[in-house]
Amino acid sequence: MSNVPAPVQNLIDAFSRLPGIGPRTASRLTFFLLRNQDDIGLKLAEALVNLKSATGLCKECFNITLSGQDRCEICSNDQRDQDVICVVEAPMDVIVLEQSGGFKGKYHVLHGVLSPIEGINPEDIRLEPLFKRIAEGKIREVIIATNPSMEGDATALYIRQKLEPYHIRITRLARGLPAGGELEYADQNTLLRALSGRQEI
Amino acid sequence: MSNVPAPVQNLIDAFSRLPGIGPRTASRLTFFLLRNQDDIGLKLAEALVNLKSATGLCKECFNITLSGQDRCEICSNDQRDQDVICVVEAPMDVIVLEQSGGFKGKYHVLHGVLSPIEGINPEDIRLEPLFKRIAEGKIREVIIATNPSMEGDATALYIRQKLEPYHIRITRLARGLPAGGELEYADQNTLLRALSGRQEI
Repeated sequence: MSNVPAPVQNLIDAFSRLPGIGPRTASRLTFFLLRNQDDIGLKLAEALVNLKSATGLCKECFNITLSGQDRCEICSNDQRDQDVICVVEAPMDVIVLEQSGGFKGKYHVLHGVLSPIEGINPEDIRLEPLFKRIAEGKIREVIIATNPSMEGDATALYIRQKLEPYHIRITRLARGLPAGGELEYADQNTLLRALSGRQEI
Repeated sequence: MSNVPAPVQNLIDAFSRLPGIGPRTASRLTFFLLRNQDDIGLKLAEALVNLKSATGLCKECFNITLSGQDRCEICSNDQRDQDVICVVEAPMDVIVLEQSGGFKGKYHVLHGVLSPIEGINPEDIRLEPLFKRIAEGKIREVIIATNPSMEGDATALYIRQKLEPYHIRITRLARGLPAGGELEYADQNTLLRALSGRQEI
């Protein structure tokens, strides 16, 4: 853009590098902050600076935790089921599952998913520490909650094969129609899954 | 959200205060930055901090300019028509008009629009300096490019009335069908405007 002072253009560029934010939205956000009398922008800057310096990864499950804190809140909570591990791809999945309120066990965050096409192999994600946790022998069930994608399925399969020797229960999140959805709008794959996974009522 | 470390939650909250960014997008952006190895977040923080400290308003047209610089690039450009002023609501409107490449004169940024309902009166926006610029007698035409909204129209009307004594040309941006749009999707108001403003071809 011509005639935009550098400090304004810099912020537009910085916003544009975020996922899902195009140049137009980036401009809108920038001019909102320029117009705004509050310290919204400075608060955001502060939070950005603190984000990485003040956080680290839980040594047990690799979820996000406060820096200098070995284990996350969930791992250090004795009230949670100690013998069920839910395996997820990313820290945000933990939040989503926690919000559902349906799981009371512990987590394991892989920080990625197997993808031969993108060159992501077992050693690139936190798989070994998962197998180590299970080898310690206290785990009764592993729920694999990777995304219902090709890569998520491949990762689930890989984990299942690796855990075969342990004779523990290994499950995968159910697939079917999303709650509140409509048959008419379901894709064929989802519909086939919903059919083959049908249950007695 | 439970179980989210404070530095993460702080950034989610800070992003959520931006217009058009809901809690879900805010979380997605935050976890993108957590995952990201580059310094995208720090660059953004830096740009945010610089935004207000490094910018100011042009003393002539009130467009955004570099701090310590009295007049913006457009106002200090001798190549531009010195006798036409385009009146806009916000600095972003200047950018949009500049990108169109259709205007070669100067601007005047009101920083708002008259709105009795919201209690925005003539003295709350940069109207007086506009009248002062015109009173100096060098202006031949004023193009009022406030938004085609009720407030934008009211502001245009107010400016026209105030400028009556000067006998200069006062115009308003044309209304009609947006380029690339379809009749079928045009609202009634736009259609009526397009009809009444029809031109010989």
